[in-house]
Amino acid sequence: MTAGPRVATPPPLRWDGTALHLLDQTRLPGEEVVVTLSGADDTAAAIKRLAVRGAPLIGVAAAYGLAMEVARTPTMTALERGAAVLAGARPTARNLGWAVERVVAAALARPDDVAAAARAEAEAIHREDEAASAALARHGADALDAELPPGPVTVMTHCNTGALAASGRGTGLAVIADLAERREIHVLACEARPLLQGARLTVWELRRLGIAHSLLVDAAAAGLLRGGAVHAVVTGFDRVAANGDVANKVGTYGLAVLAHHHRIPFYVAAPTSTIDLDCKSGAGIPIERRPPSEVTTFAGRRIAPPATFAENRAFDVTPADLVSAIITEEGIAKNPYGPALAEFVRLAQG
Amino acid sequence: MTAGPRVATPPPLRWDGTALHLLDQTRLPGEEVVVTLSGADDTAAAIKRLAVRGAPLIGVAAAYGLAMEVARTPTMTALERGAAVLAGARPTARNLGWAVERVVAAALARPDDVAAAARAEAEAIHREDEAASAALARHGADALDAELPPGPVTVMTHCNTGALAASGRGTGLAVIADLAERREIHVLACEARPLLQGARLTVWELRRLGIAHSLLVDAAAAGLLRGGAVHAVVTGFDRVAANGDVANKVGTYGLAVLAHHHRIPFYVAAPTSTIDLDCKSGAGIPIERRPPSEVTTFAGRRIAPPATFAENRAFDVTPADLVSAIITEEGIAKNPYGPALAEFVRLAQG
Repeated sequence: MTAGPRVATPPPLRWDGTALHLLDQTRLPGEEVVVTLSGADDTAAAIKRLAVRGAPLIGVAAAYGLAMEVARTPTMTALERGAAVLAGARPTARNLGWAVERVVAAALARPDDVAAAARAEAEAIHREDEAASAALARHGADALDAELPPGPVTVMTHCNTGALAASGRGTGLAVIADLAERREIHVLACEARPLLQGARLTVWELRRLGIAHSLLVDAAAAGLLRGGAVHAVVTGFDRVAANGDVANKVGTYGLAVLAHHHRIPFYVAAPTSTIDLDCKSGAGIPIERRPPSEVTTFAGRRIAPPATFAENRAFDVTPADLVSAIITEEGIAKNPYGPALAEFVRLAQG
Repeated sequence: MTAGPRVATPPPLRWDGTALHLLDQTRLPGEEVVVTLSGADDTAAAIKRLAVRGAPLIGVAAAYGLAMEVARTPTMTALERGAAVLAGARPTARNLGWAVERVVAAALARPDDVAAAARAEAEAIHREDEAASAALARHGADALDAELPPGPVTVMTHCNTGALAASGRGTGLAVIADLAERREIHVLACEARPLLQGARLTVWELRRLGIAHSLLVDAAAAGLLRGGAVHAVVTGFDRVAANGDVANKVGTYGLAVLAHHHRIPFYVAAPTSTIDLDCKSGAGIPIERRPPSEVTTFAGRRIAPPATFAENRAFDVTPADLVSAIITEEGIAKNPYGPALAEFVRLAQG
């Protein structure tokens, strides 16, 4: 178990009115390096190489990327090209396409000043994401506080869903951080191979939050869930279909099956920008395949024999019936999810 | 998918009559380094640091370690001290204690020449383990051939259970290799964090065997099992209790739950030296906890913040009712396992 004094987490993304400054997450926890971006191409490249990551945060970054692009070249051609480059950077998280569509729609609605319109919309998306993070954390902590047995609790989480994954405190980890202000909590953080966002980023955040935690390899989760000491599993998600099927970091589906097998509640949290009503079920969610080298090498060192093929799907899909609740800033949905998710989108748009 | 021409695998362990030569498995797949051992202490150290690993193989290595010890100092004191050092090297695999007990019993039965008795017993254990590997591979391949649908099959495996884990061809991977001589097989090899025996050793063996394979992070197994393309999961095991509960590399239990959830058969294979009739159920199997640094570092590089605590249980226990069959050199056991396991031990001792 590791805990410690609280230290402020540097913001993963800072907008200065004209340029976007990102904490390069590929360098954490070893180094805190900030990179400055100025348009659609460098922002898309930063998203692709995971310098910025987390479904809500890549939405915010893409919105600013497009705003910076049309600030430089305030034409419809630049808007369309920038939107295509950014929306194509990564396929699975709904927030990316959603944010780009919002900026494009705002710019199209104000052809006399597309740059101002795009900038204002990106800033609005950023503000709304921060507010959503605070609201969903509160809703989620309320639900867990009501549904878990009283006293200290142990919560398992996967990948990184904190202040490095979204504006404000994050999604899944924001729920945990909010609950940690009401209850004693021990967090079991799965490392999330291949890119180890759990080991590198979640542990780094938990230390700064002063929340007790232990790290584990993903394969160790099952034995701990069986042991009876885990009260809940809480993750984020990258896209939810209209029926409640959720796509999230590879390994989430396995945790959901294991939680179900051991009768442990399995919560997922994300802002409504992650809801995709056009996608009927999880079968329609595009799953990103990333290079085999992420699996066969580590920090530049080869771990498998040369030319080994690795199947490297970055996400998996968890069917709605394995999810105990979907936590958003508009409230908590329970199975059947369809009506609630549609209502949340209506409320968020209202 | 990776395949290729067959190349002979160097033996993981060679006995020259007086010294034991080990292929240092911590250096694979990058380098093929052979270390020479001469007694109980250096053999125990090699077992502890996983230069030699795999339940059956550490049994064989420990037997030779004790034989070398009493060849140097042919006294009862040396025998007892060497036995204690070796049996205490790692707690979970039954084969280690089993092999040490056999060598001790043989030496005690021949007090006039304990060195010759110990050496003869170690050599017998080695020969028997090699024969067991061939027999269990044949039994296992017969069972899979009969129980899986006809045509090409995809089999998932975990950790390393091949020619590096036992004498001869191994255990789980030996079954797969035998079946590969009758069927077209594609192997999905889970990497087995933290120490990556799947990525480093199983892939290396599969290439030499010329069997098509893909590597995956452990967290990706669930999504692939859900996809419907996997016909069976086959692993080894380190100890089986009298009721059929099996301890194996951490992550095995999760694969067993996932296989059960998706109605995919889950086979485990090991020689009868792995059966522990004195252990009534899995609750009695000692689970090794290894240093957190195996999790917080990766290929020699720190991945988590300094002083992070990692829960690092090297094994987990799979309850008997999730196991489709236990494959040994004496035959195949099905649930309820108790009578068959007791009979296998009787046959092996006979």
